[in-house]
Amino acid sequence: MTLMNRQYVLARRPTGALQESDFTWQEAAIPEPGPGEALVRSIYLSLDPANRGWVNDVPTYRPPVGLGEPMAGFVIGQVVASNREDLAAGDLVEGDGGWQDYAVYGADDDVVKLPPGEDLIARMSVRGVTGLTAYWGLLDIGQPRTGETVVVSAAAGAVGSIVGQIAKIKGCRVVGLAGSDEKCQWIVDDLGFDAAINYKTENVLKVLGQHCPDGIDIYFDNTGGDILQAALFRMNQGGRIVCCGVVSQYDTATPLPGPHGMPGLLVVRRLRMEGFIVMDYDDRRAEADADLTAWVAEGRLKYKIDMIEGLENAPRGLIGLLHGENTGKRMIRVSEEP
Amino acid sequence: MTLMNRQYVLARRPTGALQESDFTWQEAAIPEPGPGEALVRSIYLSLDPANRGWVNDVPTYRPPVGLGEPMAGFVIGQVVASNREDLAAGDLVEGDGGWQDYAVYGADDDVVKLPPGEDLIARMSVRGVTGLTAYWGLLDIGQPRTGETVVVSAAAGAVGSIVGQIAKIKGCRVVGLAGSDEKCQWIVDDLGFDAAINYKTENVLKVLGQHCPDGIDIYFDNTGGDILQAALFRMNQGGRIVCCGVVSQYDTATPLPGPHGMPGLLVVRRLRMEGFIVMDYDDRRAEADADLTAWVAEGRLKYKIDMIEGLENAPRGLIGLLHGENTGKRMIRVSEEP
Repeated sequence: MTLMNRQYVLARRPTGALQESDFTWQEAAIPEPGPGEALVRSIYLSLDPANRGWVNDVPTYRPPVGLGEPMAGFVIGQVVASNREDLAAGDLVEGDGGWQDYAVYGADDDVVKLPPGEDLIARMSVRGVTGLTAYWGLLDIGQPRTGETVVVSAAAGAVGSIVGQIAKIKGCRVVGLAGSDEKCQWIVDDLGFDAAINYKTENVLKVLGQHCPDGIDIYFDNTGGDILQAALFRMNQGGRIVCCGVVSQYDTATPLPGPHGMPGLLVVRRLRMEGFIVMDYDDRRAEADADLTAWVAEGRLKYKIDMIEGLENAPRGLIGLLHGENTGKRMIRVSEEP
Repeated sequence: MTLMNRQYVLARRPTGALQESDFTWQEAAIPEPGPGEALVRSIYLSLDPANRGWVNDVPTYRPPVGLGEPMAGFVIGQVVASNREDLAAGDLVEGDGGWQDYAVYGADDDVVKLPPGEDLIARMSVRGVTGLTAYWGLLDIGQPRTGETVVVSAAAGAVGSIVGQIAKIKGCRVVGLAGSDEKCQWIVDDLGFDAAINYKTENVLKVLGQHCPDGIDIYFDNTGGDILQAALFRMNQGGRIVCCGVVSQYDTATPLPGPHGMPGLLVVRRLRMEGFIVMDYDDRRAEADADLTAWVAEGRLKYKIDMIEGLENAPRGLIGLLHGENTGKRMIRVSEEP
């Protein structure tokens, strides 16, 4: 535990690939919570590809992080001191604490109190934003039916690895794309995917045809770009493309134009392509959590944590994530659990 | 009425813009219907932008027209002689009769018998494929709600002009894009659109912003290309893009790549982009027909026919359609109604 509030603030807006020097490390005094505020010590900090979008000068589903402000990030932490009626010292909470040891949550900040005894790592991965994204994206947007073929990109990533397993639970044939032979082996041997494609070494369009002899019914897209293009050509009539993320395009000043055949292929094949943000399902969290918790308990849903030790490694952790370094859910251990 | 069967057959596959010389005019003997077949004389031939896709060497929602075969096209005609139990001489029918005076329908051909006294022109336009496309695309794919803003491209065309009026009936604000000031005036003054944009002379992105101060909830896309791109940037969270056609891209050997911001904007704004083909709604035709018929009878839904006289003008009629010559529904009068 530190006596200072160490933090990374946004030093400049990246013009191309994110650099460590886009952030400045600084140490400030630990803030005092004012009236109606609570001070929270960070335990785990989530790293997510979507973080990259937040540092551009364009609003996404949230305002851009301001220059000189602490980098935003989803945090599980413990209340140290509280002037809020709904929180007491010792409570475990989750919220947008950012890349720092301590955050103050005011009355307007979204903060969720966790039940005592909560498994914090599961709460940050399979039962948290990651698992919920996979769950709602696949089930509500994708609408899988038994016997259908589901393809997922970034399949060894936090969300993709859960998507594929839920699709298996729902009785689908599942093919994953990942960036190394080790990742491909993991999703097939350990997670039960039917097949995997190393998109860095294989001809994706061709191999998709081999692994999806009946075509693709659902493509769960975490990447955009060339993989989306290849999947689009293999979609069956009535297919669904779940637009979850665009990791191939976040970290560049020169994003690709959209795929060819768009929107013509959507018409001819009656495709639905739909984006979503997991927060839109907040009011249905209990429903998803019941399923996710049961599947984990039954051993049908596995998850892997890619833990990075120390807040000081947050920038390089995010940069590595954008380059596909991780297998499973990448997070930072900012401090030890109580 | 002719004593020969005049027809246009596909002479070659166009490599870029469609040419009249891509078709060969020929005169053949009037065929005799065999066992289980009926001979039908063409009265009206529909010209539709989608026809352009059928002459490429790539299957769409139907197989390509073969070289040397009569050009395909939707026809309303009258049975001349029949060896089918379900059809008798004098019956009025609709089906894929193609660009010719006479067609033979076998047992496997889709042919629909029309009730006696049917208004054939309404059946080929507002109550036919055109009106049904507008109806299902807007209502089932677009799901308009009162007070929403609907934008439609090719708004003075056969489908677009109906889409905008149905959107008004459903209580939406409606903005149409068309290619001339006359077309823009027609859709506002005669059809009741709230605003129109001449996409050839105005800055579409900018003017869309002015005419849609609350953003776009539904974009009904008949064009793809630059107009889709501009509309995409103006879509509201939770918006729907109805993918009906891509007329800006049919008639070229060098189609544009898909729009920029795809799929990223779909994620951030939770957009749904969905294609459809009107034939998928065949089993719900009565439902749509009841509404369309009532709206026409009440004077709330107007339609305009762009009639071209004579089968010999079919190639130039289609080419003109692809270049936006028409206002309303373009069709060919092949022979007089009985």
